[in-house]
Amino acid sequence: MLKRIDHVGIACRDLSAAVAFYTSTFGLTVVSTETNEEQGVKEAMLVVADAPAGMSYVQLLEPLGPDTPVGRFLQRRGEGIHHVGYGVADIEAALATIGATGVRLLDSRPRHGSMGASIAFLHPGDVGGVLTELVESAGR
Amino acid sequence: MLKRIDHVGIACRDLSAAVAFYTSTFGLTVVSTETNEEQGVKEAMLVVADAPAGMSYVQLLEPLGPDTPVGRFLQRRGEGIHHVGYGVADIEAALATIGATGVRLLDSRPRHGSMGASIAFLHPGDVGGVLTELVESAGR
Repeated sequence: MLKRIDHVGIACRDLSAAVAFYTSTFGLTVVSTETNEEQGVKEAMLVVADAPAGMSYVQLLEPLGPDTPVGRFLQRRGEGIHHVGYGVADIEAALATIGATGVRLLDSRPRHGSMGASIAFLHPGDVGGVLTELVESAGR
Repeated sequence: MLKRIDHVGIACRDLSAAVAFYTSTFGLTVVSTETNEEQGVKEAMLVVADAPAGMSYVQLLEPLGPDTPVGRFLQRRGEGIHHVGYGVADIEAALATIGATGVRLLDSRPRHGSMGASIAFLHPGDVGGVLTELVESAGR
């Protein structure tokens, strides 16, 4: 069901500093930056890939304020890995299948993610402490 | 320099339970299990991929004891994402390039990782709180 690691989401305090670090130190390239008011973040997607077929990203996330999911994460844990996103071919089907196993869905219906993707999060308490995101890319 | 997300390393208390969860809930397949005494873990690699070219893994890690890196992580943070590993073509070259930027290397020389890979960790304090691993796969 999970087709690839779509991205690793990393919480940071200063998006422009984090972008500068990942581009200069690791040679990654920013392919998208956007603000997602619904999720309370501004973010950058940096591509990590051999080839388009295996496209994966580092997603750098700066909270829009302290009272947002990423803002609370930073207060509790500091900067670091926030979640992992897996690519799926059909997010509605994946949510139905996973929900039927008893895993709680933080999003019972897909919502808007980065670069036009449809996304949904699973409850980390049911996934061994891992905030897990499903991603159906736009145009797939 | 970073070619792909090779794996996400996830700390768990009970490897067989975590493997059962990832295989039954997400349909992943175990491709390797091994014990790494040097790193103080027993682990399973589960493949997440569309195609061999884009091969990525979920790496489930159970500590061999409390006084190991993953054991201490579990005590401090509980179960969850422990690190991210990126594929590189030439790990010696990558370490030299990254080390020259001032990022501290936890391993100045590669050591043995999963499935015969050569691996090295970067200091999370210099990578925005992210324990970052470089992976040169065997046979690449």
